[in-house]
Amino acid sequence: MMTDHYKYKCSDCGSEIASNEIENNQIYLCPKCGKLEKNKPLVGVLEIVYDYEEIKSKISKDNFLKNNAGKFWKYPYLWPLNFTDDKLDCISETQLNKLSLIENPISEINYSNNSVKIFDDSRNPTLSYKDRASILVALKAIQLGITEIAAASTGNAGSSLAGICARLGMQSHIFVPKNIPESKRIQIQSFGANLYVVNGDYDQAFDLCLEVSKKKNWYNRNTAFNPLTIEGKKSSVYDMFISMKGNLPENIFAPVGDGVIISGIYKGIKELLKLGWIEKVPKLFAVQSEGSSAVVDYIEGGKFEYKSANTIADSISAGAPRNLYMAAQAVISTNGKGLKVSDEEIISAQKVLCQKFGILAEPAAAASFAGYKKISENKDIQGDSILMITGNGLKDISSLKNWNHEVEIRTEKEWKAILNKKSFEI
Amino acid sequence: MMTDHYKYKCSDCGSEIASNEIENNQIYLCPKCGKLEKNKPLVGVLEIVYDYEEIKSKISKDNFLKNNAGKFWKYPYLWPLNFTDDKLDCISETQLNKLSLIENPISEINYSNNSVKIFDDSRNPTLSYKDRASILVALKAIQLGITEIAAASTGNAGSSLAGICARLGMQSHIFVPKNIPESKRIQIQSFGANLYVVNGDYDQAFDLCLEVSKKKNWYNRNTAFNPLTIEGKKSSVYDMFISMKGNLPENIFAPVGDGVIISGIYKGIKELLKLGWIEKVPKLFAVQSEGSSAVVDYIEGGKFEYKSANTIADSISAGAPRNLYMAAQAVISTNGKGLKVSDEEIISAQKVLCQKFGILAEPAAAASFAGYKKISENKDIQGDSILMITGNGLKDISSLKNWNHEVEIRTEKEWKAILNKKSFEI
Repeated sequence: MMTDHYKYKCSDCGSEIASNEIENNQIYLCPKCGKLEKNKPLVGVLEIVYDYEEIKSKISKDNFLKNNAGKFWKYPYLWPLNFTDDKLDCISETQLNKLSLIENPISEINYSNNSVKIFDDSRNPTLSYKDRASILVALKAIQLGITEIAAASTGNAGSSLAGICARLGMQSHIFVPKNIPESKRIQIQSFGANLYVVNGDYDQAFDLCLEVSKKKNWYNRNTAFNPLTIEGKKSSVYDMFISMKGNLPENIFAPVGDGVIISGIYKGIKELLKLGWIEKVPKLFAVQSEGSSAVVDYIEGGKFEYKSANTIADSISAGAPRNLYMAAQAVISTNGKGLKVSDEEIISAQKVLCQKFGILAEPAAAASFAGYKKISENKDIQGDSILMITGNGLKDISSLKNWNHEVEIRTEKEWKAILNKKSFEI
Repeated sequence: MMTDHYKYKCSDCGSEIASNEIENNQIYLCPKCGKLEKNKPLVGVLEIVYDYEEIKSKISKDNFLKNNAGKFWKYPYLWPLNFTDDKLDCISETQLNKLSLIENPISEINYSNNSVKIFDDSRNPTLSYKDRASILVALKAIQLGITEIAAASTGNAGSSLAGICARLGMQSHIFVPKNIPESKRIQIQSFGANLYVVNGDYDQAFDLCLEVSKKKNWYNRNTAFNPLTIEGKKSSVYDMFISMKGNLPENIFAPVGDGVIISGIYKGIKELLKLGWIEKVPKLFAVQSEGSSAVVDYIEGGKFEYKSANTIADSISAGAPRNLYMAAQAVISTNGKGLKVSDEEIISAQKVLCQKFGILAEPAAAASFAGYKKISENKDIQGDSILMITGNGLKDISSLKNWNHEVEIRTEKEWKAILNKKSFEI
């Protein structure tokens, strides 16, 4: 049984801590420098590190590529989970089958002269990228013998955790601010979560969730705070690597709110580099809404200042991105770029994605395409690109209503007259 | 190039017609006995037949099972499409990749002592079973050199066709009755379809769609009328057969409205039998709402009488099921059963599926579970069962609002007090 193939390392002070010490004591942030303050990014976010030389000696790139995308638990040596003979401990195959992500996430769209591909996470079990984190967190909870998991959420993370817990027969507890969009609240409740609507903002929901879960001994999935949320999100890079037969694209565009998705992507890339399975690092492009641009501002100006966020793309609305420092580093060290797009550009990108390419994305997810459109119109991009589509448009159908779909109701006779007249135009 | 590996056969009068004759002249119903009448099931629905002896001599069961689920076009000899060396003509791999269904549709749920499995079609490209028909129809249109496709729809078929056409760069034209649910209309429009809202019922939309598409030379995807809709829907059986490593379950539960899905399932089963790849036929259970039960009534009483349909499960609401005779035959000849469930039973099944098993299904899709619940509570079922989940719950989020989700908004302090009190209960 492998239980000590990884340890935790603080991304700020560099302290290294044994996995048992962290997990048995339910520690989440760095015990030395960790800091959680209102309206500020987290300090002391932990990263998980493995013995990459050991992994390399045990598996070759060619053998690794025989894995299918969408089932990251099939190679447990790259995850903070206990296993025996390449199989996870405490979890049956039947349970794992319920968690499969889509096996064919990548498809080409015919947009510009350069190759542009969609990475489609809108068909995961709860139709969002967040499932990657929820799944890893839930598997960890099972191995720790905990059956209840809590999270603070503004929407998708909560519905994802609730859905994954339901699939596994676990109980979820979701703490949300009172301004949560109705459709996301309904998703959370539909999955049988216990819902706690806090008469306050996300920070208050976050604090309450921490305090209560500690007291009740629930496992905590607060985004960025639990290092497994970042870790789970690295799985998209492995799925990309497998789907692209051992390659990665030159550019990856990701929507950024809290900064956890792009940090996870960067983590996956760094690991592939350490394993010697890739030579070139993709450039990471962090796309934010103009109304919630703390990460891009930090990349450009080197400092963080709290501003309350305001954007139609609720999944990337974050005044104080919890994972700001790691996200900024991901962009800077890959020679990528931070990009701001307006809500109008997001909606217009959402329309084009759906009408021209059949990809129904929620506004936050369409932001990656909005960023790509903007930069490619300025001819400021070379090589092939992958756009991360992080959530399904049906998770937020009210955003589609903003398109002002015109409805003409006519009788059969009227339609015939109109269509006959139009016959030369159509 | 294989172009004549199949022919059409009338399911009523038995006439056989060469594929070229049907397709080049855009014939859909049997030219001898076909009849399309208001408020009546169709007469002369065509079936596609292949030379099964020829197929058997070319591929073994073991070799067939090396296919992945979710990409039925990989074995074109079982589809009415032209191909060369096992590859479809006129369509690139890049285009086909955009159409992949989920590769892992089956998962076990822990519901009764008998084995119960979900067949999950709620994560297809447009999140419904209808994609199976839309994909086959679109591929046929491409091979016929037609770039515009029309359909009459009450919701899912239209949004499916619109989404699949958008993925392939084709134009769709959707004719709908004025009472279409808002969220389904928005989905259709979001995918860039031309929408024609008819001030009348589904029958009027159907007639108008036929007349206009004939005039404009658009390919027609009207359900049951175009035999490829039934044919496309057989693909779930092949996906099941592949996922279950060459087996099928003892029982299959399917929601039934127009009767096309269950007819497609039956077609797939009959083919596997003719190929000698299965020996035993699963029993087919047709589940209908009490407010729309023409197929079940026909199975039980042997006659059809038009009654206007009324059920919360809009995707299986059909007063005059177009494919009634074939659907009834599917149930009767497999020794299955027709089951009626109330709207309350459907909603209750939808809740359990979501809260206990994490499967968010639309009401029509939850009907299969409602039927299973009912019959298993009476201990009237033996062996393992598969429940067809035909559409995602987010396609109809308003139905989830019917659950009367309670919302309690409280301050942090209040929640703490409540949660501390509850600490022994939770």
